[in-house]
Amino acid sequence: MPDDFVVTPWEVKGDIDYERLIQTFGTQKVDEAIIGKFTEHTGELHTMLKRGIFYSHRDMDKIFKDFETGKGFVLYTGRGPSGHTHLGHLMPWIFTKYIQDKFGVELYFQLTDDEKFLFGPDLTLEDTKHFAYENALDIIAMGFDKDKTHIFLDTEYANQMYNIAIRVSKKVTFSTAKAVFGFDNSTNIGAIWFTSMQAATSFLPSVLKGQNIRCLIPCAIDQDPHFRVTRDIAEGIGFYKPALIHCKMLPSLAGSDKMSASLPNTSIFTIDTPKEIKKKIGNAFTGGCASVEEQKEQGGNPEICSVFQYLYYIFEEDEDKLAERKSQCLSGELLCGYCKQYLTEKVTTFLQAHQERREAARDIIEDYMLRDCLCKEE
Amino acid sequence: MPDDFVVTPWEVKGDIDYERLIQTFGTQKVDEAIIGKFTEHTGELHTMLKRGIFYSHRDMDKIFKDFETGKGFVLYTGRGPSGHTHLGHLMPWIFTKYIQDKFGVELYFQLTDDEKFLFGPDLTLEDTKHFAYENALDIIAMGFDKDKTHIFLDTEYANQMYNIAIRVSKKVTFSTAKAVFGFDNSTNIGAIWFTSMQAATSFLPSVLKGQNIRCLIPCAIDQDPHFRVTRDIAEGIGFYKPALIHCKMLPSLAGSDKMSASLPNTSIFTIDTPKEIKKKIGNAFTGGCASVEEQKEQGGNPEICSVFQYLYYIFEEDEDKLAERKSQCLSGELLCGYCKQYLTEKVTTFLQAHQERREAARDIIEDYMLRDCLCKEE
Repeated sequence: MPDDFVVTPWEVKGDIDYERLIQTFGTQKVDEAIIGKFTEHTGELHTMLKRGIFYSHRDMDKIFKDFETGKGFVLYTGRGPSGHTHLGHLMPWIFTKYIQDKFGVELYFQLTDDEKFLFGPDLTLEDTKHFAYENALDIIAMGFDKDKTHIFLDTEYANQMYNIAIRVSKKVTFSTAKAVFGFDNSTNIGAIWFTSMQAATSFLPSVLKGQNIRCLIPCAIDQDPHFRVTRDIAEGIGFYKPALIHCKMLPSLAGSDKMSASLPNTSIFTIDTPKEIKKKIGNAFTGGCASVEEQKEQGGNPEICSVFQYLYYIFEEDEDKLAERKSQCLSGELLCGYCKQYLTEKVTTFLQAHQERREAARDIIEDYMLRDCLCKEE
Repeated sequence: MPDDFVVTPWEVKGDIDYERLIQTFGTQKVDEAIIGKFTEHTGELHTMLKRGIFYSHRDMDKIFKDFETGKGFVLYTGRGPSGHTHLGHLMPWIFTKYIQDKFGVELYFQLTDDEKFLFGPDLTLEDTKHFAYENALDIIAMGFDKDKTHIFLDTEYANQMYNIAIRVSKKVTFSTAKAVFGFDNSTNIGAIWFTSMQAATSFLPSVLKGQNIRCLIPCAIDQDPHFRVTRDIAEGIGFYKPALIHCKMLPSLAGSDKMSASLPNTSIFTIDTPKEIKKKIGNAFTGGCASVEEQKEQGGNPEICSVFQYLYYIFEEDEDKLAERKSQCLSGELLCGYCKQYLTEKVTTFLQAHQERREAARDIIEDYMLRDCLCKEE
C-alpha cells in the first residue's frame, strides 16, 4: 500500500490514486474490450462505465464467456451494516441492478452484521442486526428483481454460511490474513476469522445449486483484499474463483476520502429529510473561491468539489449538462450556491421516491430474505 | 507446560504428571470438601472420585451452591468426532451420566465436527459429520436421560452457535490464542477461531432459557485450556464462568499417553468385535517380566501395566478385588495372561451390551438431537 493513502476494507483515507491501486492490488483495468462486451450484451454504455467509475476488474472476460456459452453466472454484493445506508453505498447497487436487469441473473446480497459487530468496538450484535434490516429496506427499494434476489444476514443464515466458511478458513493461514489485512497480536480472533464468511458467499450459489457457477462481485475497490484471499483458495476447495468489477468510492461532502457513515454530517443517508439534505449540501466542501468576486474572476475547481463529484458519480447522467456545468464552473460563470441548489433538488427528488419504496419494502421484506434450515432437509 | 510431557486439546504425550498440571493450568484439587458434597448430594461415593480419576476442578463449590439454593445448573460435555468412540472417551461420559442421574440436570453434548475438520489435515467435513453421528449413537447408548439430553453438531446448529461464538471471539485476541494454544503464523484462521465455538456451549443453555444458569463441564483435563479462555471472557459478555471437573486420561494399551483414535491398535473402540478386543488386549503392554519364571520370582508392576489401568479406570469397580489383584501381581502370584483374560471378558461383556443399545439408538437419535432454525422463531 502506498503511504500517502490507505485503502483497506475497514479504512479509507488520503487522496486515493485509483490507477496505482490497480497495480497494488494486481487487478485489471476495465479496458475497451470489456466495455465493448458490456455494450454488446446490454445494448447501452452505462454511465458508470463511460465515466470510469467502475474502472477495475478481475476475470470479467470469463464472466462474459460463461454468459455467452450458456453456463451463466450469478451476482454477489454486500453491505456491512454499521449504520444507515448512505448514497455512497448505492453506487455499486445501481450498477449491480443494471447487470441483473440486462443479464437476467440472480443476486446474493450478504449483510455482514457479524463483521460490523466484530470490528466495531462500540457496536452490539443487536445494533448490527437492526441496521442490517434497515439496509435491507434500501436494497429492496432499489428495485432488484424479487424472484432473483436473495438477501441474508450472516448471523441468520449461519447454518449454510458456516459450513462453507470453515472450508475457506482451513486454507487461509494467519500469515496470509496478517499480510492482507494488517492484523496483529491484538486483533480479535473473530475479526481474523471473518474473511471466511465474506469469501463464503462466492461459493454459496454453487452449494445451493449443487453445481458450480461463477460469481461476479460488483463492489467498491476497498473490498478487493477479501476476494484476493478468496480467489487464492477457491480452486483448492473445488469452486471457481469469483470475478470482480470494482468502483471508485464516492467522496464525502467534506471533499475527500470515502463517504463514511461514521461522519454523519458529511454523508447523505437514504433516510435523511429534505431539510437535512439541504443543510448537508449547503455545508458541503466545493472548489469555489473565498469570495463571489474572486470566483467570478478566477473560476472554480470542479475536480476537488464534492458537489460536482456527486453529480459526476450519481446524479447527473446527462453528459452534455455535466460538461456544460464544468465549463461554466471553470469560467467563473456558475457560483457554488447554484450547484448546491441543483444537487439538493436532484437528491431530494431521488430520495423522496426512494423513501416511498423503502417504506413499502417493509411489507415484502420476507420475499427477499434467504432462509434455510439444515434440519428441514433431513 | 513442563517439557517432559505435553497436554493440549490436540496433543497429549509423555508421562503426564497430573499434580503438576493442576499448578500449570491453575485449577483446584478435588479435595475432601468437594468429595463430601458429592457424597452428601448423591448418597454415594463414585469410584472415579474415590480413585482420584476425577481429580481437578474449577468452581465446583459454586455448582453445589447453585444446586442447593435452587438456581440449578446444567451439564456440558463434548466429543471431537475424528473417528469412532473408544473406551477413553467413555470415562467422562460415565461420570457425566452419574451427575445427570443424581442431580436430575440437563446435558448439552457438543460434537465439534468443525474442530476436527479444521485441525485434521486429512479429514473432510463429510468424514467428521459421519463420525459425529457414529459418536452420537455411543452417547445415546450410555443411557443419558432422553428428555434432558441435547446433542448437536457445530455445523448443524450453527445458527444458534455462531451468534454466541462471535460474541466470545470479539473478546479473545490472537495474543491470547497464541499463548494458550501455541498457535503461530502457519495456523489456519478457522483453527484460531475455533475455541469460540467450544466456549459458546457454556453459554448456550443461558441463551436458550433466556436466563443465566451456571454450567458444569466434566471433561478430560487436556480440554481445560479452552475453558480457561472461556472463563476469562464469560462475565464480560454477561454470563457465568463455566465450572469444570477434570479427569485423568485413560492410557493406551501401549502403556502411556492418552488412548488415541489415531493409533487404532492400541485403543479399543466401542464397535470392536470380541475377536478384535481379544487381540488388542492380548497385545497390550503390561508390567510383567520377560519370562514366567522371572515374574513368579520378582512379581509384576501394576503401576505401568495398561491392563491394570483399564481395570482401575473403568472395569473393576470392586475395591477389594482390585486390591487383591494388585497384591497378587506384585507377589508374582498372578500372571499377565490371567489379567488379560479377565479384562477381555469384562470389556467384551460391556461392549456387547453397549453395541445392542448402540444399534437401538439409530431409531431414536432424533429424539436427542438439538435442532433449531432462527427462521421458525420469526
